[in-house]
Amino acid sequence: MVKIAILGFGTVGSGVAEVIEENADSIARRAANEIGVKYILKRKQLPDSPFADKIIHDFSIIEKDPEIQVMVECIGGLDAAYDYTKRCLMAGKSVVTSNKELVATKGHELIAIAKEKNVNYLFEASVGGGIPIIRPITQCLAANEIDEIYGILNGTTNYILTKMIQFGASFEQALKQARDNGFAEKDPTDDIEGHDSCRKICILSALCFGRHVYPHQVPTRGISGVTRSDVEYARHLGYKIKLLGRALRTGKDTITAYVAPHLINKTSLLSNVDGVMNGIVVHGNAIGEAIFYGAGAGKLPTASAVVADVIDAVKHFKARKYLDWEDSVPGYVTDSDELPSRWYVRTGASLEEIGRAFGNVKFISYPEADPGEYAFATREMTGHQLKSLINGMEVRSVFRILD
Amino acid sequence: MVKIAILGFGTVGSGVAEVIEENADSIARRAANEIGVKYILKRKQLPDSPFADKIIHDFSIIEKDPEIQVMVECIGGLDAAYDYTKRCLMAGKSVVTSNKELVATKGHELIAIAKEKNVNYLFEASVGGGIPIIRPITQCLAANEIDEIYGILNGTTNYILTKMIQFGASFEQALKQARDNGFAEKDPTDDIEGHDSCRKICILSALCFGRHVYPHQVPTRGISGVTRSDVEYARHLGYKIKLLGRALRTGKDTITAYVAPHLINKTSLLSNVDGVMNGIVVHGNAIGEAIFYGAGAGKLPTASAVVADVIDAVKHFKARKYLDWEDSVPGYVTDSDELPSRWYVRTGASLEEIGRAFGNVKFISYPEADPGEYAFATREMTGHQLKSLINGMEVRSVFRILD
Repeated sequence: MVKIAILGFGTVGSGVAEVIEENADSIARRAANEIGVKYILKRKQLPDSPFADKIIHDFSIIEKDPEIQVMVECIGGLDAAYDYTKRCLMAGKSVVTSNKELVATKGHELIAIAKEKNVNYLFEASVGGGIPIIRPITQCLAANEIDEIYGILNGTTNYILTKMIQFGASFEQALKQARDNGFAEKDPTDDIEGHDSCRKICILSALCFGRHVYPHQVPTRGISGVTRSDVEYARHLGYKIKLLGRALRTGKDTITAYVAPHLINKTSLLSNVDGVMNGIVVHGNAIGEAIFYGAGAGKLPTASAVVADVIDAVKHFKARKYLDWEDSVPGYVTDSDELPSRWYVRTGASLEEIGRAFGNVKFISYPEADPGEYAFATREMTGHQLKSLINGMEVRSVFRILD
Repeated sequence: MVKIAILGFGTVGSGVAEVIEENADSIARRAANEIGVKYILKRKQLPDSPFADKIIHDFSIIEKDPEIQVMVECIGGLDAAYDYTKRCLMAGKSVVTSNKELVATKGHELIAIAKEKNVNYLFEASVGGGIPIIRPITQCLAANEIDEIYGILNGTTNYILTKMIQFGASFEQALKQARDNGFAEKDPTDDIEGHDSCRKICILSALCFGRHVYPHQVPTRGISGVTRSDVEYARHLGYKIKLLGRALRTGKDTITAYVAPHLINKTSLLSNVDGVMNGIVVHGNAIGEAIFYGAGAGKLPTASAVVADVIDAVKHFKARKYLDWEDSVPGYVTDSDELPSRWYVRTGASLEEIGRAFGNVKFISYPEADPGEYAFATREMTGHQLKSLINGMEVRSVFRILD
């Protein structure tokens, strides 16, 4: 039997323990080895938990126990998670995590340590929750030059936008619903403002294009500025508003990445990814387009991705997985405003002003629209071109259109 | 450099050679080793091909060359493909294939030989073309008990049905279009009658549930019986007709599997998988629902899946992948007619006959419908129950409804 330790026993950590117990037989068959939880690191005791006898408070017990070969980090955040992960890897233990913040911020460094120690640092659960995405990219699509990846990477914001689209809810009403149904945290800033999506597109970008991209290199806009009227204008144009993280190659060794709300065509599969579900689109030069869909968060989906990594780590004690990328270099991440697209603009400017700046545009209207404003779709242009055209205008919303 | 041999140089075989050449750099990075084609086994010479100098006609050269560590089998069919695959595995070489007929028929035996010889037999390209599906099931979803898998597994039939749905084409017109556009073979029987989908659901079933399922154990109906009026009735009920392969657990160590046209709800993601694209839905006890979408056939997508397996084989010379299942046992595959669902029925029977047999049903109508027939959706019942109710009726079409 292989013994593992779980650090942190919140939603994901307790889910991991449950999945390991519940599916013990099939896991043992797939790992060619039984897997059991020896320690759970947690500050408080859990006297009523079936796992009460495994709770410990001192990390060094795990670090020093040679029987522990795999450590599951579910603490989240950077401080303790970073310290403990590093120490486990240094001690020759493989580490599995769902901590996207840590991978997006320190992934390159931690993978380098894992490589040196000939152990694994695996993080399938850090992007797309239970959706298999990291392994498909690194293994199944290995024969492709990937040129673009984008998707709906955050369940909370997708739930809110779905409520706004389907029931005409305002952002505030939809956020309240998300909270009432347990789909938004007490402080939902990380989700709402796009930081969570940003970390995920950093990780996907590193895997697809081979170099680390740090969160601060990725311009990030969330959905707090999306209004009911934006949703309605989009609908009348045949589009839905979705928050996308997107990364694409812009040259031989350059990429660009950003997070922002987009108008996406109603006929696209991604536009039908609703509620808390996630969907990720990958473009490769051989495969064309592939799409991955599933629960992007939640206790059991995320735990199942963590446990799949644990199985993989157990199967590969002697054969390190080549999950690997280089560090970023100056000039690697280019300005996303150089990327052309059509744009949706909602503005309080006059028809004359709009005509002077844009020439002929495609106006969008609907019966209940605010008579004091216009909304339209532009021709294709870069972000810089758009900014110079709307300079001085009273602009209320600007989103890219993805056809 | 790792040297490989390609057997067969049709669409997939030549695609494999092209992808290996085109993406050589990224492949070498991912495999941690350069990969080159040493031999191509083909009956005819190809004097004008850039690969002309690699063509050989005698398989035993490959079999006996210790430098060849991986053989790519793209011959198709059973006879020579089976013989050569077996001999390569026996000679200690890993084999990669896109040959679903061979895997569905002899997979258990060939995997057992690979296991004994400590080499790999890999076949990601045999299902879903370029869509990553086999590895996600066996690795990423390893922590799940999978209870069901189904999907649109054949591009030719999906192209034909899409033309019928979108343009009101008849089956014959749509088949002609598929042929004219290179999406149907000269003899399209294997696709049209569901045999191709059958082989694929056999392979998926073995991977998900752990035992071989042979094609003759899977009741298989194709789309040649689907008419324009079926498409229209379905549309007016809010559904689309799609050919699905489906396999699900029916007990602790029993499953059922079948291939047949279904009415699927227009709001489902799968109903928007159109043209030659494929989509596969997996249900697991931890992840819930996951969907995989992409090009199910075509030269480069399929070749990219083959090459991904080659990379994997090269990376795992010393660590055999656990792609493995048991043989079938008597009673393992249960009668699919015991599976309940709602049904779509189109019949020349009278209202009275229908009422006598079914009681209240949901009739479907549209203005141009044939006045001499009725179409309706039943309540949930097994295939056996349905058969006894329609016994003696003049029935024109019967399909399951998947909600």
